[in-house]
Amino acid sequence: MAAASGLPHLIARSGVLPLCRRLPAWGRAVRQLPGLPLAPCRAFSNNKIQVEMNESSGVATMKFKSPPVNSLSLDFLTEFCISLEKLENDRACRGIVITSAIPKIFSSGLDITEMCGKSTEHYTEFWRAVQEMWLRLYSSNMVTLAVINGSSPAGGCLIALSCDYRIMAENPKYTIGLNESQLGIVAPFWFKDTFVNVVGQRVAERSLQLGSLYPAPEALKFGIVDELVPEEKLQEKAAAVMAQWLALPDHARQITKSMMRKTVLDRLVAHREEDIKNFISFVSKESIQKSLLMYMEMLKKKKS
Amino acid sequence: MAAASGLPHLIARSGVLPLCRRLPAWGRAVRQLPGLPLAPCRAFSNNKIQVEMNESSGVATMKFKSPPVNSLSLDFLTEFCISLEKLENDRACRGIVITSAIPKIFSSGLDITEMCGKSTEHYTEFWRAVQEMWLRLYSSNMVTLAVINGSSPAGGCLIALSCDYRIMAENPKYTIGLNESQLGIVAPFWFKDTFVNVVGQRVAERSLQLGSLYPAPEALKFGIVDELVPEEKLQEKAAAVMAQWLALPDHARQITKSMMRKTVLDRLVAHREEDIKNFISFVSKESIQKSLLMYMEMLKKKKS
Amino acid sequence: MAAASGLPHLIARSGVLPLCRRLPAWGRAVRQLPGLPLAPCRAFSNNKIQVEMNESSGVATMKFKSPPVNSLSLDFLTEFCISLEKLENDRACRGIVITSAIPKIFSSGLDITEMCGKSTEHYTEFWRAVQEMWLRLYSSNMVTLAVINGSSPAGGCLIALSCDYRIMAENPKYTIGLNESQLGIVAPFWFKDTFVNVVGQRVAERSLQLGSLYPAPEALKFGIVDELVPEEKLQEKAAAVMAQWLALPDHARQITKSMMRKTVLDRLVAHREEDIKNFISFVSKESIQKSLLMYMEMLKKKKS
Repeated sequence: MAAASGLPHLIARSGVLPLCRRLPAWGRAVRQLPGLPLAPCRAFSNNKIQVEMNESSGVATMKFKSPPVNSLSLDFLTEFCISLEKLENDRACRGIVITSAIPKIFSSGLDITEMCGKSTEHYTEFWRAVQEMWLRLYSSNMVTLAVINGSSPAGGCLIALSCDYRIMAENPKYTIGLNESQLGIVAPFWFKDTFVNVVGQRVAERSLQLGSLYPAPEALKFGIVDELVPEEKLQEKAAAVMAQWLALPDHARQITKSMMRKTVLDRLVAHREEDIKNFISFVSKESIQKSLLMYMEMLKKKKS
Repeated sequence: MAAASGLPHLIARSGVLPLCRRLPAWGRAVRQLPGLPLAPCRAFSNNKIQVEMNESSGVATMKFKSPPVNSLSLDFLTEFCISLEKLENDRACRGIVITSAIPKIFSSGLDITEMCGKSTEHYTEFWRAVQEMWLRLYSSNMVTLAVINGSSPAGGCLIALSCDYRIMAENPKYTIGLNESQLGIVAPFWFKDTFVNVVGQRVAERSLQLGSLYPAPEALKFGIVDELVPEEKLQEKAAAVMAQWLALPDHARQITKSMMRKTVLDRLVAHREEDIKNFISFVSKESIQKSLLMYMEMLKKKKS
Repeated sequence: MAAASGLPHLIARSGVLPLCRRLPAWGRAVRQLPGLPLAPCRAFSNNKIQVEMNESSGVATMKFKSPPVNSLSLDFLTEFCISLEKLENDRACRGIVITSAIPKIFSSGLDITEMCGKSTEHYTEFWRAVQEMWLRLYSSNMVTLAVINGSSPAGGCLIALSCDYRIMAENPKYTIGLNESQLGIVAPFWFKDTFVNVVGQRVAERSLQLGSLYPAPEALKFGIVDELVPEEKLQEKAAAVMAQWLALPDHARQITKSMMRKTVLDRLVAHREEDIKNFISFVSKESIQKSLLMYMEMLKKKKS
């Protein structure tokens, strides 16, 4: 039945999710887009992200636990979106902490295997899921707090940048940044927009061109994260920061957040299909396939 | 006669003001808008702001002296706009210093009594006066210098942000910020735009969501003010800063300023009536009336 | 033949340049504009800029050597654009270092003699050359590195701001900034846009209104330059920085750069003819001619 209603595929997939009670602006816009292709129902794993809800504080914790490096596979992204939607629709949940259960890594970003040797349909579904993840997270009505307890390149950095506040472990071995250009690929415009909203045009321009990965102290200096905390104090600090944000009346805070992020969210909603086409055209190039395969080989060798 | 000419109500009200000699761009735009409703002529007090003109330096000082906290009532705003227009039209006046004659407070922002239990007509007139104040100040051809000698929340902060330069007393007990969300209300988009133009998107997003009031040293750190000066040296510093700005040829400085602020000014001019409707719809809500009344009760208790 | 093809005058002039192999986006846009007036072919000097190409590193060095102060005359600009286009079309050239061969000065900016007592045709040609220079430099596919080994006011500062990275000699006697308003003139909107992209809205607003020239240490503090280096180490540093930028795959870096700068480049392309008209109307004013003449007199007296 959900499939027949024309809702975006993630909603259709889950089938059981109630209509959004606190639907953000972009959500409504998406729903109004006519003729969105529906993905066929598919099973998805439900063990890549551990969600714990603290009923008394109203704060949920989402822990990435997809070894070895929390890469953003289609399954991971699907589970992420559904978890996010469930929490968004749970009146008791006012804030979420996003962190990792894997030592030394927050998230390594998009799963490159999803971009290699797959069909156009697969690329479409994958990229739509990446977009969906960002649209939901960046427009969330909940307070979103990234507790970055490990390295966080590319898509992992995007997740952090999309939160309301970023705390990072004070460990110079952990790095963060949008390093796409180092891999010979280009961060999409909405990665860029999100980055510019956090660090400003100049730092974004230099960092994106160089594909810079910043050690935690540099990340703080350039404003990519808001605070550094010794790793053992991350939880304590997260609780304190969350309490500060939850002290505000939800309604005023939510409208304010939406006002600040609307321009950038609207841009992807307006150009979503075009952005998918761009991704497919790019990833289908022989030269890109070649460099991604080479990159994967390199990662495998590194591992063994 | 003025009423018949279709000029905006503030001009109509004063009745005696000559046509702007140095009318800024937005002013012309406003005047071209057809069918602006005219407010009936009304008396207004003329003792909430003390204006002193120094003929030799070409600098006027506007001192807020509306006890207890220089709140921005309709009368205050009307007087502010008319004083501003008089100075704007005075060829001898090239710069203004805006400061407070009330100890420890610059301005407490919008007068909440104007938003409680009043008629739609009153809300309309009040909100139009708030807009008018900002349009005139933000687009002023004069050099505008805020000398912030006390706390300056919400609308008080907006006045400071709209000036060309901000000096604040070096006293951590004085705070400044757009703290609307703490009261359960939302800063309008043009408060936000003005804030972003001063501190950038990231600091604005965090500060507006949290409704942060920054002690003077923090305000300097985040760029909300340009300089801190011991309170007893404020006047001396103000004179020096003003002299520096007046050393520039007026014409080039004015065109440059207009170029920098045009986008944001144009946005309110284009959405002015819509913004008034939003304000009325918001302030008319039972829940908002209730929280504003509660807030006023709290203030009264605090005082006694 | 080139003249008949409707290409912009700089291309037409050179006559021998091959069609761009790596034509940036704006270039294509410019070429599509119908009815661009063609300047008559004219000779131009070819000794104001010394270009050296290092074949092994793929880095060219452009040294300004137009005494006394590397001012941007029509001849200088023409030579600059043609050199830039040649390098842009040279597959072996991946990066350029822009610096000065004249002690203590990087470039003094636009040549005022080109703006005094000349014909409308001359003003048109001059201003189009200024635009062309910026369009080519700001959109260059090459890595562009400004090595600022002397003072760099106005148009000189614009050249530096248009590069990807700025290193300045650590000498407080060298200043940099867009000081147009000090001369009673106004920096065009695209100077402003370029400046805002580097230092943000607030620093740009204050600096442009005051026409601030910052000594090197201040320039670093406000983000106008990225790094200060003792003058004798500039070359060594430039090589290291260039190597860092060239380590990135060209294609990804170029698309990223174009994504970051497109909005601002498109704005001038869309308003190019209007901008020329504005310049002519401004520079033709008696009052402006008078102040420019006075300024030139002052410079002459200073010199003697």
